[in-house]
Amino acid sequence: MVKTEIGYTTTDTIMVRGLNLATEIIGKFDFVDMIFFTTLSRLPSPQEKTMVNALLVTTADHGITPSSLAARLTYIGAPEALQGAVAAGLLGAGSVFLGTMQNAAEMLIEGARELSADATDEQIREAARATIRQHKEQRRAIYGVGHPIHVDGDPRVPTLRELSRANGYYNVHWRLMDAIGEVLTKEQGKNLPLNAVGAIAAAVAAMGLDPLIARGLSLVGRSAGLLAHVMEEKSAPMAREAWQLVLKDDPRNVLP
Amino acid sequence: MVKTEIGYTTTDTIMVRGLNLATEIIGKFDFVDMIFFTTLSRLPSPQEKTMVNALLVTTADHGITPSSLAARLTYIGAPEALQGAVAAGLLGAGSVFLGTMQNAAEMLIEGARELSADATDEQIREAARATIRQHKEQRRAIYGVGHPIHVDGDPRVPTLRELSRANGYYNVHWRLMDAIGEVLTKEQGKNLPLNAVGAIAAAVAAMGLDPLIARGLSLVGRSAGLLAHVMEEKSAPMAREAWQLVLKDDPRNVLP
Amino acid sequence: MVKTEIGYTTTDTIMVRGLNLATEIIGKFDFVDMIFFTTLSRLPSPQEKTMVNALLVTTADHGITPSSLAARLTYIGAPEALQGAVAAGLLGAGSVFLGTMQNAAEMLIEGARELSADATDEQIREAARATIRQHKEQRRAIYGVGHPIHVDGDPRVPTLRELSRANGYYNVHWRLMDAIGEVLTKEQGKNLPLNAVGAIAAAVAAMGLDPLIARGLSLVGRSAGLLAHVMEEKSAPMAREAWQLVLKDDPRNVLP
Amino acid sequence: MVKTEIGYTTTDTIMVRGLNLATEIIGKFDFVDMIFFTTLSRLPSPQEKTMVNALLVTTADHGITPSSLAARLTYIGAPEALQGAVAAGLLGAGSVFLGTMQNAAEMLIEGARELSADATDEQIREAARATIRQHKEQRRAIYGVGHPIHVDGDPRVPTLRELSRANGYYNVHWRLMDAIGEVLTKEQGKNLPLNAVGAIAAAVAAMGLDPLIARGLSLVGRSAGLLAHVMEEKSAPMAREAWQLVLKDDPRNVLP
Repeated sequence: MVKTEIGYTTTDTIMVRGLNLATEIIGKFDFVDMIFFTTLSRLPSPQEKTMVNALLVTTADHGITPSSLAARLTYIGAPEALQGAVAAGLLGAGSVFLGTMQNAAEMLIEGARELSADATDEQIREAARATIRQHKEQRRAIYGVGHPIHVDGDPRVPTLRELSRANGYYNVHWRLMDAIGEVLTKEQGKNLPLNAVGAIAAAVAAMGLDPLIARGLSLVGRSAGLLAHVMEEKSAPMAREAWQLVLKDDPRNVLP
Repeated sequence: MVKTEIGYTTTDTIMVRGLNLATEIIGKFDFVDMIFFTTLSRLPSPQEKTMVNALLVTTADHGITPSSLAARLTYIGAPEALQGAVAAGLLGAGSVFLGTMQNAAEMLIEGARELSADATDEQIREAARATIRQHKEQRRAIYGVGHPIHVDGDPRVPTLRELSRANGYYNVHWRLMDAIGEVLTKEQGKNLPLNAVGAIAAAVAAMGLDPLIARGLSLVGRSAGLLAHVMEEKSAPMAREAWQLVLKDDPRNVLP
Repeated sequence: MVKTEIGYTTTDTIMVRGLNLATEIIGKFDFVDMIFFTTLSRLPSPQEKTMVNALLVTTADHGITPSSLAARLTYIGAPEALQGAVAAGLLGAGSVFLGTMQNAAEMLIEGARELSADATDEQIREAARATIRQHKEQRRAIYGVGHPIHVDGDPRVPTLRELSRANGYYNVHWRLMDAIGEVLTKEQGKNLPLNAVGAIAAAVAAMGLDPLIARGLSLVGRSAGLLAHVMEEKSAPMAREAWQLVLKDDPRNVLP
Repeated sequence: MVKTEIGYTTTDTIMVRGLNLATEIIGKFDFVDMIFFTTLSRLPSPQEKTMVNALLVTTADHGITPSSLAARLTYIGAPEALQGAVAAGLLGAGSVFLGTMQNAAEMLIEGARELSADATDEQIREAARATIRQHKEQRRAIYGVGHPIHVDGDPRVPTLRELSRANGYYNVHWRLMDAIGEVLTKEQGKNLPLNAVGAIAAAVAAMGLDPLIARGLSLVGRSAGLLAHVMEEKSAPMAREAWQLVLKDDPRNVLP
């Protein structure tokens, strides 16, 4: 039988994970409840809700990014198809941007497998060194450190660390992520502090969530940011100008 | 100058709508706050927050839909690219499914333009008749009524109507939407009650939001539902079986 | 029964439109043959093949466009998912760019409905005036004229007109399109010559193809152009620089 | 300077790779010429053109696939946005379907690195064994063999092998691909013959093309097949029925 446990429908009811959508969910669950309920079949604890809200807020947006530019450039060609602009903006969430949350969380879960909850700082550092060594040997990127713009430290990291601490999630995964940043900075002789991806991955690993969910939540958060960009593009357009700016940078292009 | 008012970045700060993302937003705003803040440059009232949560929850998901099937069928071909599966699931949110929230809200805003806040029931019915007449003359669809499965009434509608009432949003737009359903049912001699799209459009119009935002919020809500489907497809796959079910329905296809 | 006439599969054969893919199609059909065969269930005439090749070549690419920029910006975030970059580049082919071929062809088919094959120039002009009048009354855009860059004439138009003529497709639809450009130019007192979209739409209408096919062919053509851009982005990247160029145009953004 | 070598534009000319699009390309190049010219900056040899046509034809379509189903399910929600349906159909071309051409070609190029053009059969077999061994050790999939439906052999493979031979491309890469199928079949005691992905990858490696181009060409070919499916969905719909078929397979869903 082809089925989903997420929900089913009859002519007069819609059931989601065993509850009646109309009488037991809408108006009673907020959106983060619904994310947990459809995905994990349970409601979040208050701590989890705080953290997931922070994650969604952090990934929503921060100005002109490849993602928001792609959405705006798509919108000006097909303003009747909002869904296409949002989809285009999401499609860059891969192994370089955003999608790396998954990889970073997987790296931390793997790296912390042998660590007990009360591991010493030296044990954490050793695990950090081992993780870095392994990733180098296997020619895999080390995720969650460094930032092309925030070269001296990503401003979102202290806030996310503090929030994790306040909600009981500053555990071995977070400490391992911090240690990876420190060890790398020392080894390479240049500042390689954590970035927001690393902080979110640490929080997600600490919360015991599937790393794929972290990546998925970043898509949900980003879809809100893309909506904001498209709404602005509708009322105060800039994508055409951005395109022409790029065109004109090559003097062979001659515009009227 | 090419710019956005949504936000900008320096090496040590990220500003969103005039606030510092790290010190003034993350951990202080929940996700619905952030949606309002990035899109409308203000925070929601408690009533608006309740309604937007209800809208996001309603659009998130209800089992096997063309949208969730498209996402799952995409995921099994490219499991490494979650963003592609979510994007594929969103791309059907157009003039037939989901995207119609925008059209329905536009229809209500236009239809209620001449109505005062205390319009009589007869004035509302007259506006409903005028709206139906105009749409027929211009061969435009009438949005927000009827449902292929919930033929005797969409179970989500009473809940959304009650929520709107409780939060002060059962106004002329909602009454017009209800009247359109009643007039059509009488005219066509068959039950054409409101559907969830109509109820959401009525709420959105009543809240004074841009109809495009309604459509955008449904994408945000749906992205969460699609995430749930992809997570389930990873652990309890069904898309391959669904595909084979369709294949086998045509006996010319012969599988091993 | 759920079925498609395009093809079916058994354990040892794949049938497409009644022919055996392995023994009767691969190596015998070229790509344009295959497009016709899968879509229209017949092979193209030599004239049709020439025209469809011209259409695919014309829509493939011309440097930095919103479409190629969106694809490149997507690729740098998710280089492992080529399909996402190509999809992002296609998603802008809507009512403003590229997708307008469909609208323009529909406009020509409707506008030429009453014209006989040997209509006089004056009859054609009258149909052009009527089309323009109707579109204005219904507040619908007139497609296929004017270009933001090629303000004095789109260089592709004479070539496409000449090709259409040489292959027997310069008929009433093409003449109507030319007349619409002339009438508009006279009426508005500024040069509004045909653009490539108008020329392709005229050719497609003249060939008797469904306007939706025109739009679809432009997606096929464009996908090739997008592939070229992504291949170049891989070896000689520019999207990051383009992004930073846009960022830096707003002095509030401060990069390292 | 932000620039592309693919092309540039002035008010009266469009240049593509140094040629004038209007006077030197349209009407003179066919679509496969254009693919080569924009991507590789040169025209194909007759042998290359034959092979690329075969590749595009092979990847275009074969009936009901996850890809064509996703496109059709998207189209019925957003029929006004053809580009979204095609994009949805392409987004599944990843590490399991279609995108594997890239991986298989990379596997062959790497595996044949030490082989001379006149390698003996035993040398080829040894390279096949080494490739299989390495992939197993690194837990990487072996691409290009086996098929869920064509369990006794993919009917497209002999045709593609013959075409490669006739055009001078049956070389060490092809022989290595064939040997991998044979060695695996012997090792695992069950038939694991080449599939179309393996055959195309072998041809692409033999032609010296970048494996990413192979993957890209499959997107171009598939976009044509998706167009055929969407055109049929418009005139002879089946996606709604397919969806209901899946819904009804779970008896908890009760439709009117």
